[in-house]
Formats: sequence, C-alpha cells, structure tokens
Amino acid sequence: MEHEFLRWLQPQLAPHPQVLVGVGDDAAVLASRPGRSWVVTTDTLTEGVDFRVAVDDAERIGRKALAVNLSDVAAMAAEPVAAFVSLVLPREGAGELARRLLHGMLPLAREFGVSIAGGDTNTWGEGLVVSVTLLGQTSERGALLRSGGRPGDDVLATGRFGGSFLGRQFDFTPRVREALVLHSRYRVTAGIDVSDGVSLDVSRLAAASGCGVELDLRELPIAPAAYRLSEQPGDGKSPLEHALSDGEDFELLLAATPDETRRMLSDQPLDVPLRRIGRLIAEPGLWGRTDDGSRISLRPAGWEHREQGEERP
Amino acid sequence: MEHEFLRWLQPQLAPHPQVLVGVGDDAAVLASRPGRSWVVTTDTLTEGVDFRVAVDDAERIGRKALAVNLSDVAAMAAEPVAAFVSLVLPREGAGELARRLLHGMLPLAREFGVSIAGGDTNTWGEGLVVSVTLLGQTSERGALLRSGGRPGDDVLATGRFGGSFLGRQFDFTPRVREALVLHSRYRVTAGIDVSDGVSLDVSRLAAASGCGVELDLRELPIAPAAYRLSEQPGDGKSPLEHALSDGEDFELLLAATPDETRRMLSDQPLDVPLRRIGRLIAEPGLWGRTDDGSRISLRPAGWEHREQGEERP
Repeated sequence: MEHEFLRWLQPQLAPHPQVLVGVGDDAAVLASRPGRSWVVTTDTLTEGVDFRVAVDDAERIGRKALAVNLSDVAAMAAEPVAAFVSLVLPREGAGELARRLLHGMLPLAREFGVSIAGGDTNTWGEGLVVSVTLLGQTSERGALLRSGGRPGDDVLATGRFGGSFLGRQFDFTPRVREALVLHSRYRVTAGIDVSDGVSLDVSRLAAASGCGVELDLRELPIAPAAYRLSEQPGDGKSPLEHALSDGEDFELLLAATPDETRRMLSDQPLDVPLRRIGRLIAEPGLWGRTDDGSRISLRPAGWEHREQGEERP
Repeated sequence: MEHEFLRWLQPQLAPHPQVLVGVGDDAAVLASRPGRSWVVTTDTLTEGVDFRVAVDDAERIGRKALAVNLSDVAAMAAEPVAAFVSLVLPREGAGELARRLLHGMLPLAREFGVSIAGGDTNTWGEGLVVSVTLLGQTSERGALLRSGGRPGDDVLATGRFGGSFLGRQFDFTPRVREALVLHSRYRVTAGIDVSDGVSLDVSRLAAASGCGVELDLRELPIAPAAYRLSEQPGDGKSPLEHALSDGEDFELLLAATPDETRRMLSDQPLDVPLRRIGRLIAEPGLWGRTDDGSRISLRPAGWEHREQGEERP
C-alpha cells in the first residue's frame, strides 16, 4: 500500500520554505530561522475513544487529528510549519481509508501553511490509530508557556464553551491566528488550549504558574450546543456545567495583567470574541464567583476523568 | 493513568541543553544551533506485526521503538536530540506496560544523549501501538541524503546482514556514532539504513541518486544468524538470500567515491567492520556479481513484500 499511497499523496503536498527535504528520505530536513525556537507536540486519536469509523467520516477524523495539534501549537503562540502523520490502519480497505484521512487533513494543512513532511503507514487486524506530530516556530518573543502567569493577572478566553460533542469537537478552528495576533501585539503572560475542559485546563495553567484561579462564572461564554445538550432528556447538567467540563472546545485560555487585559478587551482584535473570565490568585485551587457574588470551591473536572477517555500529558 | 505515569517518568528524564521546555506544557520548546538543520523521523511499531506482547518483553519493544528512529537519524548523519513517544495501550495493565516500555527506552535514550521531551498516552480495548518521533540536528556539513550518489561511487556497508529475526531486530545498536564519524571525516555522498533488506534499501538509495547498483555478492557480510536460519528445516533460503532480503539489520549503506572508499577501508575508523559491497552504475536496476564473476539481475525483495508486514515510507 505504502508506495501507491505516497505516489497519490506527494503531488498534493505543499512545499514550505523551511522544509528542505520532505517525504521520501530516511527523515525530513528542516531549516531553522535565526532567533526562533521550535515547538513540538504530538497527539494521537484512537478508534472507539476519540471517534468511531462507522459513524464519523474519515475526512473529519483526519482533519481533527491535525487540528488538535494545531491547537497545541496555537497555545504556545507559534507558527505551524511541518506535520508528521502516522497511520495504523485496519488491513481491509486500508488504502481507501488512508486517502480519505489525508483528504480531510490536506485542506487544513494548506489553510495554516503546514507542510506534511513525513510519516509512517502500517496495517494490522485491529482498529484505526491516527497520530500526528506537529512542529512550529515561535516568533522572536519566544514560546507562550503555561507557567508565566502571576497572581493578579486576569484570565481571558476566546470563543464559547460546552457541548462540543454535538459536532464542534471535529469542526473547530484551531486558534493559531488568534494566538499569534495576541502574542505579538500584547503582553500575554501564559496560555493553554482547552482540550480537557475549562475547569481542568485553567487549573493546569494556574498550577504551572504557581497560582490558584477564580472564575467569574457569570462571564464564562457558553456555547449554544451546551444549552442544547442540557435540554436533552436525562442529561442532568446545566449549560454552565457543560461549559466548565465538557472539553474539546479547543479555545484559548490566556493570562495577562489587568492593564493589558483592558487594552485587549477594548481593541477586540480577533474575529472571535475575547472575554475576561476570571483571575489568577495567590491561594491555590479552583474557585468560582457566582451570580450573587459569593465564592464557591470548584472541582476541576473534564475529559481526563472519564474511564474510557483519552488521557493527555 | 497519565498523571501518575508522568510523575513516575519525569524524574528519570535527562535534560538536554537544546530542550528548553520538555514534558508538561502544550508542546516542547527546542532551541536550534546556528548553521545546523533539524532532521525529523517517525516510526510506529504495532502489536502482531512488529512484536507480540505475549512473547516479546515490553522492555525490548520499548527499546526497539526508539532504536529504529535512531537508525533513521543515523542514516541522515545527524545527532539525535529529542524524542516524542506516543503510546496506545490495552486498557488492562496499561500503567505497568507503559512503565516497562519506557524502562526499555530510557537507557538507550541516555546512551545516545536523547531527551524524551513529550508524548501522549492513550488507553483502549485493542492492541499496543508504540510510535516515536525523533528530532536530530545535522552537523555543519548538513544532512546525508539518499540522493547524493553518482555512477562510479562505491557502496559500503557497516556490520553484517541477515537473520535479524533471531534476536538482532530488537537488540541492534543504531549506527549513530558510526554515521557521525564517517560523515565528519570523509566525503560520503549518500546514505540509508537497512530496515527492509539490503536489496530493497540499496535499490532505494540508487534510485534516489538516479543510478542503478551492482552488488558484489562475494563481499556482502553475512551474519552468523543468517547461517543458523538457513540451516533450519524447511527454511529453503541460502545465507546470502537471508542477508539480501531479511531486513531489520539497521546497518548503514553508504556511497562514496573510490578514492574516499579506499581511505575509509584502509583507516577502518569504526568499531564495526566497514566493507565495500558494490558500486553505483549508470544503468538502472539491481545487479549482482557472483562467485564466477558473471552478472545477474536481482529482484529487490524484503520486508515490504510480506503481506503481514509493516510498510514504511
């Protein structure tokens, strides 16, 4: 399958000025730009956990496998450069499935200027595994880490949260452009993308920054899908609970000083809404400020705690 | 599992001066060295194809998953820097299996100065998949490609070939040091590592260089294991056939001008034997020179052609 697949794939691969050698040698060769660092992330999607081949289109699965990695590169405020795609395919219909996965991946790669520069295809008698490693280059400001926040920083969010399982988990737009705009024009102190849920991921950002965090629950932007999920019989969760813990939103959470936050909120420099949703505090833990202004303790909850769930580093 | 696994893993990870941020953020951050390029390779091992968990030790599987990538970085004559490890684990006993895989990987990582800088662990109801992406830095001479050979160049090989299935396929030493020595001291024109078999991989090097290749079959170093395999009842293959097509030798095939080849053969600068095994020719195809000096046409054959086989890019 390999040879035929590569013959089909190679003419569709966009060149990139930093990719000196792409698919076809023992390894790809990438040129660095002076004064820039590389960021590297890898994320694997597995059948039955992240998708079901019988239900989800192969094209959407392929797109998502690249998109989740783009979201991680966005969280570092880096510019994506080159992707490496490893496929483990059920033997029957492997060639067709591989082409459909790439068919879903290639338009997104083009949209974000990513060159697919290497990979590996394997066939076996079990389910589909799609693993993508993505390399990006930082700007001269360097990478945006989780650990740069300080008590007193505001916490900001792009977009809306909750109910991604109704479709946004596949069709989201990774916030690469948004991160690059914010990191270049403002002094953002820390960042993370929401893969496992706002409450879990904001706790991770806070902990990495040596802080706690207080969310202003009235300000958390809730997606229409979170309301729709909440209205389903037997759901038993409020839209706010969905927004806090569903995960797979792939929006950005950022920290910045109150002055910089005011500038960002007043400029609204993105095509998606940018909202202040809380602040970092010295006291460890996750706290919520409710409608009546009282403060409650929140439990970080999200995708990580599902027994069948994918677990991310 | 993830959190506990990372808490176990992190104290064991060796730092690397170019790894500015390792495991724990949305992505790793790597610093480049001026005048050097990066090489990037990825290779995936799957249960039932590359190993059987019930038969092969998890430690050996983990070691091999890193070693095959080190062999690819060696084939580019680059210095390995950072590895990214994606595990898809059968749910039952996932934590223990993950630790054993890393237990096999970590000594090899230390031996070759590689920092495990990121990854992803997932659990599911099916077999084990181990995927490693390895980044290396070239020397100032740049990467050693498959495509630099010219008609008239000699073809050289490190080590011996055939019968790797008797154990060497797991326990081989990737030829990283050897490639760096040869590329820095001599003018090597092209290189590839033998993953799929001498006849197949030398044909790939020749084709990438726009050449054919003639192997001097009397000179091909045959491993003792190839003789042992050949003697097994029902094997039906000569030791030479095993050496030509078994694959998983993870030795280096190199091209160099006859003058440089003479220097290398006389110096023997490696701890493993370096042998001249043939030459690149203008005429396309794969040819063999036999004991009596006559020339025969050979069919490139190796691991790629096995129905159950892993297929590599």
